[in-house]
Amino acid sequence: MAQEEVQNGGVEKVAAVTFTALKPQLMVEAPKAADAVQFYKSAFGAVEVDRTVHPKRKAEQELPHILSAQLELAGSTILVSDTSESSAPLKTEGAGCVLCLETEDVEAAIAEAVSAGGVAEGEITEGDDACCGGRVGKVKDPYGYVWLICSPAKKCADVEA
Amino acid sequence: MAQEEVQNGGVEKVAAVTFTALKPQLMVEAPKAADAVQFYKSAFGAVEVDRTVHPKRKAEQELPHILSAQLELAGSTILVSDTSESSAPLKTEGAGCVLCLETEDVEAAIAEAVSAGGVAEGEITEGDDACCGGRVGKVKDPYGYVWLICSPAKKCADVEA
Repeated sequence: MAQEEVQNGGVEKVAAVTFTALKPQLMVEAPKAADAVQFYKSAFGAVEVDRTVHPKRKAEQELPHILSAQLELAGSTILVSDTSESSAPLKTEGAGCVLCLETEDVEAAIAEAVSAGGVAEGEITEGDDACCGGRVGKVKDPYGYVWLICSPAKKCADVEA
Repeated sequence: MAQEEVQNGGVEKVAAVTFTALKPQLMVEAPKAADAVQFYKSAFGAVEVDRTVHPKRKAEQELPHILSAQLELAGSTILVSDTSESSAPLKTEGAGCVLCLETEDVEAAIAEAVSAGGVAEGEITEGDDACCGGRVGKVKDPYGYVWLICSPAKKCADVEA
């Protein structure tokens, strides 16, 4: 839009658009979104603040089709949605996304997630790996999403900004 | 942990663990994470605040292997990482994740993203679909991630909380 001529193939411009929120949307195989919401509450203490169900399906089916459940977690918002005919391609189209949750108590967080039905994968490591140092463990939830439970990020000596 | 006995199969407990941050981590096929960071800057106005590269690889390879680049976008933080031998399974393990970006100007945002190299998919729709009403467009970025560009969520009449 504001970009009329690009020299040397480089794109250097200031985006003119303001974004007010970023919300990861987790697509869950229908009709498991309600179960997934319950899992995120139990495993991570997420708080559901809103839920939109498909208006036409409520009377026909036992389980409402969740278009979008909005959860507050760690100061952020995530959306949990049942896949549908139209949204199903998103599940396969979207590249693998990992969700990093920072906490001071990695062990307890993983134990909570496992007691709620998650599966711990691998050992807790002292990372030079993802999430910029600190301790990192991995939990896969019953709906296919991978959560990294990390101690809070700290600045590393080896930073190029 | 705090859950000793569960009645009626229901899991009702308050998680004792406090989480301080949630950061979606976008795994990008190495060594394209640097390109992806540039794309998110150009397309969405993301601001890079930190970058950690693999210390051993810097001297050996022309392109540093990005363990984690931290970007601020719409008040949230996302991480962009090159896949590696150890993290590569995450790419296939992680279920498809969609990223919803809210803005008052859906058309301009999509145009910006497309001018930066994204691909608009489908038309802008007035949703009873994802993100709770409003207008929604879809952009797929060059690294496989799907972004929903949405007008800000509003309360719907059909909400079950």
